[in-house]
Amino acid sequence: MKLLEERIRKDGQLGAGNVLKVDCFLNHQIDVDFLCELGKEFERLFHDCGVNKILTIEASGIGVACLTAQYFHVPVVFAKKSKTTNIFGDVYTASVESYTHGTTNTIVVANRFLQPGDRVLIIDDFLANGKALEGLIKLVRDAGAEVVGAGIVIEKAFQPGGDLIRSQGVRVESLARVASMNAETGEISFI
Amino acid sequence: MKLLEERIRKDGQLGAGNVLKVDCFLNHQIDVDFLCELGKEFERLFHDCGVNKILTIEASGIGVACLTAQYFHVPVVFAKKSKTTNIFGDVYTASVESYTHGTTNTIVVANRFLQPGDRVLIIDDFLANGKALEGLIKLVRDAGAEVVGAGIVIEKAFQPGGDLIRSQGVRVESLARVASMNAETGEISFI
Repeated sequence: MKLLEERIRKDGQLGAGNVLKVDCFLNHQIDVDFLCELGKEFERLFHDCGVNKILTIEASGIGVACLTAQYFHVPVVFAKKSKTTNIFGDVYTASVESYTHGTTNTIVVANRFLQPGDRVLIIDDFLANGKALEGLIKLVRDAGAEVVGAGIVIEKAFQPGGDLIRSQGVRVESLARVASMNAETGEISFI
Repeated sequence: MKLLEERIRKDGQLGAGNVLKVDCFLNHQIDVDFLCELGKEFERLFHDCGVNKILTIEASGIGVACLTAQYFHVPVVFAKKSKTTNIFGDVYTASVESYTHGTTNTIVVANRFLQPGDRVLIIDDFLANGKALEGLIKLVRDAGAEVVGAGIVIEKAFQPGGDLIRSQGVRVESLARVASMNAETGEISFI
């Protein structure tokens, strides 16, 4: 999506360790009018898939998921992150490693918000190693629901997550796919 | 707001210790079309205040803040919660006790997202003891920006937060104000 690539080039900040910081429009400050345009694009891509629910993960997925869901007229469910592995109650859980933070979180969704028969679109801000997305897919499948696809704002295509998830037969649509980035020169190239 | 009071009566679950659970439409599953109606109401209430930024706090404030902000055509900034008190970098911070969880979080916003001259509307899902809202107000004032008001989805008016913040001269508009609730009978009354 050209609009997004231009925005990443303009406002993205590169850091050591493959860090691409887009916190001025995506995940700290949120440019809501801009994210509405991304939401419309996700709707264009997935409008004929019978989506009845959007799943994301706190915190930075929630904004783009909500602004997308309004074009589908479906609810959003967000998975919660928990440090504890002792989760009680009627919930689906998955374990998610974070390379960025060097931690493992348990992600949790209450059973009653994912049902057999649900056709779930997963929305998230980033796809890099694919661990969060794998966890979200597990939650949906544990519920007996179907993943119709994943809509990602920015895929770091030089990291293995996108290929990994696509090789499992899941449709992944990333609005921007970063082929390479160079923190020293500030250059970013897209696929 | 009648629509919201009816929804709370229909879908809210009462629990011991003044717990009002509305996770089926507000803070785990999000009824996006419904929250758009709340957003329009916030816009009606604050449209003439020159709001140029909406501030909220992760995670459950983000959905309603984003869906509200699109009617103002302004960005959302969400404060992040941190367990650590050692925050580095150019940030504003405040300490927030959580009665519900018995913990204290440091909430953080990057300096560059709150500027002198900003006219900030704070949006949050709940107001009970007012600690989170006090923290958010502190962040705005530390930045030399102005709080034009706070838009709250559900105020537990039998807890002290609303009175406390209003007594400090901040305009607080709550779309539903719970006067009392009874976990045994399931009754909820509104102001």
